Amino acid sequence: MTIEEVLREASALVTPGPELAKEAREISTRFTEYVESLLLRLGIEGEVKPLGSSARDTWLPESADVDIFIILPRRYERGLIDALVEKIKAEMLRDGIVAETRYAEHPYVVVREGRWEVDVVPCFQISPGERPLTAADRSPLHHAYLSARLDERLRLEVRLLKRFLKTIGVYGAEVKVEGFSGYLAELLTVHFGSFISVLKNAATWRPYRTVIDPAGHYGDPRELRRKFKSPLVVVDPVDPNRNVAAAVSLTSFSTFVLAARRFLKSPSLSYFVPRRSDSYVPVPALVIRFEYPHKSPDVVWGMFKRYARALANKLEECGFKVMRVGVDSDERTYVDVALLLESLRLPEFELHRGPPAYSESADKFVEKYLGQDVVGPFVEGTRVYVIRRRKVQDAEMCIKKALKELGLSPTEIKLGVYPPLSGGNPWIT
Amino acid sequence: MTIEEVLREASALVTPGPELAKEAREISTRFTEYVESLLLRLGIEGEVKPLGSSARDTWLPESADVDIFIILPRRYERGLIDALVEKIKAEMLRDGIVAETRYAEHPYVVVREGRWEVDVVPCFQISPGERPLTAADRSPLHHAYLSARLDERLRLEVRLLKRFLKTIGVYGAEVKVEGFSGYLAELLTVHFGSFISVLKNAATWRPYRTVIDPAGHYGDPRELRRKFKSPLVVVDPVDPNRNVAAAVSLTSFSTFVLAARRFLKSPSLSYFVPRRSDSYVPVPALVIRFEYPHKSPDVVWGMFKRYARALANKLEECGFKVMRVGVDSDERTYVDVALLLESLRLPEFELHRGPPAYSESADKFVEKYLGQDVVGPFVEGTRVYVIRRRKVQDAEMCIKKALKELGLSPTEIKLGVYPPLSGGNPWIT
Repeated sequence: MTIEEVLREASALVTPGPELAKEAREISTRFTEYVESLLLRLGIEGEVKPLGSSARDTWLPESADVDIFIILPRRYERGLIDALVEKIKAEMLRDGIVAETRYAEHPYVVVREGRWEVDVVPCFQISPGERPLTAADRSPLHHAYLSARLDERLRLEVRLLKRFLKTIGVYGAEVKVEGFSGYLAELLTVHFGSFISVLKNAATWRPYRTVIDPAGHYGDPRELRRKFKSPLVVVDPVDPNRNVAAAVSLTSFSTFVLAARRFLKSPSLSYFVPRRSDSYVPVPALVIRFEYPHKSPDVVWGMFKRYARALANKLEECGFKVMRVGVDSDERTYVDVALLLESLRLPEFELHRGPPAYSESADKFVEKYLGQDVVGPFVEGTRVYVIRRRKVQDAEMCIKKALKELGLSPTEIKLGVYPPLSGGNPWIT
Repeated sequence: MTIEEVLREASALVTPGPELAKEAREISTRFTEYVESLLLRLGIEGEVKPLGSSARDTWLPESADVDIFIILPRRYERGLIDALVEKIKAEMLRDGIVAETRYAEHPYVVVREGRWEVDVVPCFQISPGERPLTAADRSPLHHAYLSARLDERLRLEVRLLKRFLKTIGVYGAEVKVEGFSGYLAELLTVHFGSFISVLKNAATWRPYRTVIDPAGHYGDPRELRRKFKSPLVVVDPVDPNRNVAAAVSLTSFSTFVLAARRFLKSPSLSYFVPRRSDSYVPVPALVIRFEYPHKSPDVVWGMFKRYARALANKLEECGFKVMRVGVDSDERTYVDVALLLESLRLPEFELHRGPPAYSESADKFVEKYLGQDVVGPFVEGTRVYVIRRRKVQDAEMCIKKALKELGLSPTEIKLGVYPPLSGGNPWIT
């Protein structure tokens, strides 16, 4: 398939149908008016506006999200937001609408309406360049910046980029993904002018050396590289002190660069529709399941990614070779740490390197192993060695010790082979 | 046991009994006179002298060697030596004595007489400091230097040091051992004044920083360290350009330093009588047997030590962990290369690291593994990886490939466990 053919087919896949688009507009209008009425009822001044991808018509058909912002004047206290969220929920309940509170950097209200999720997000009004009070305060400015630059063609280009990022597993700034936010995707599309132009540019990126400054806040790219230490730097047009790509990890960055180059060389619809490989590679694995803690997803993913790394290190200390590490969760009941190992059991003997023969500690080493069931102690080069029996031969024994040392209590330890990670990367062609 | 008690018992062990000593003197006198008569018969001028440890009475009872030197005047050609060796052998045969030629740096005659081995070694007369024509030319000077300094007490001290070196496996300058020559042992004893003084000094040695200059040829030890790049430097009193310890490998050096320190801390007769451990540690091993080649032992040991290292490297490239490497030979029929491995079989899967995601070669890597029975290709950090099945899982398969690449044809490959290397080092206490 040519790029043109792939993009034509992909375009149909990433554009919401007329029925769905109409539904989104209706939900958006209805909730905007409803939230306006609530503010009146509560005697709180503020502008109610639909923002985000649904308001800009850059959303993907599978993501049925509508964001309604309450833009409060600066004379209100920062503390109002928590109170307002609670009051809105109470009013909604009186109207028969069940809402829940969700916490990003600050709380907001979530309402489920059929297949739609409506987020009601309070924030404070700021001007471009002004220091925000909450992380959501920049959203109206982002919306204004993008809306002024998006046309019908660019909206489609944004959708293509978003789906591309999603399929290769790097869409989303949350800790789970450590990838590209929706805003970043829109910004890159507007800046480079098309989906393909973004890819062509990305194909040349190098980590910690790529700086993009759409609004031209900085004169010298070297100044930018000094200021922001991230694999990718994209300066926020509405705030020169913010790197929109701060969440993009080195792995996500590299994945995108490789995928961009691969797609341009060998275009395929597989970058827009996840393909499941049916090959099954039975790699030995250790899966440790934990109860999902009462914390926000970003905190939980961050915590368990760190635990996974620490557990992998402990396994390597025991002598195991860890080939890949992963965290999985339904964000509700469980968190799994999965470790792919060369083997779940180590050989009976190991070579144990002691200190230099010239040091005092060589004496302690020799005294420790004398008369024991070992080969040696013997000298090779400058060091003393023994070949000894391993204390820990089983991955399970090693991981149990490690979990204890880290103070972790899993609900289950599964040993076996791990099918979810099998097969090739679906997007690579 | 105290050091004094150990040394008292050891002294008895290392001193030849009166019968044996008498036998040595008789053999020496008889062969000196016989070789003198041969020279007369052949019309060749030269001084015949017993030299070496038997002549100085510093030999160990188990080493029944007598060295008779033919010191030729300088007016003879270098080529005379080969001819002389052949003529002596022929004359001996006429007298009913079966002799063989052996090659060190140049040929010499070996006669077996009961339990004794008599070496008849031609060399050229040189003066101290004069450039030798053959490696044996310095022996008369060494003998003169040591004889002038040895007394009855020092002879015993030399024997203790030689047996100590032998028991810990570092006695001999030949390639098989890469250790301390007899001359070096005598020189160190004379220089430091006693066996224990040698050990006390050796306990403080550091490799590539220890320089000993018994005759005081050099003013500045730094000059010596610049001139000789060896773990241990002992300047030959009769030749300032020669390092007597040039053959001492880093391993032999370190072994001696550790053993010296251990013995001083914890004296034991085990440093003079090899003790066999009866513990049995069944370490997986690969033993590759070769036919003994028609070459001198130094050449063969050197060759097969290099082969052993090369084969170990090939095994490591296959993914095996080599814990210890050894060469063994009867110096007549076989040479064995023994490799102690963690395991003779590797896990089914391995993590294979590809190139950086930004490089052109990442594309080749991805194209190579696409659709194959692997996990990945996936990106982690800046690199592309796959988890793939190993091509070579068996040590035997790997070693056969390696032997072919090195052009080696063994007579046998044995896989199993290797008892000869089991148990502790006999001398360490």
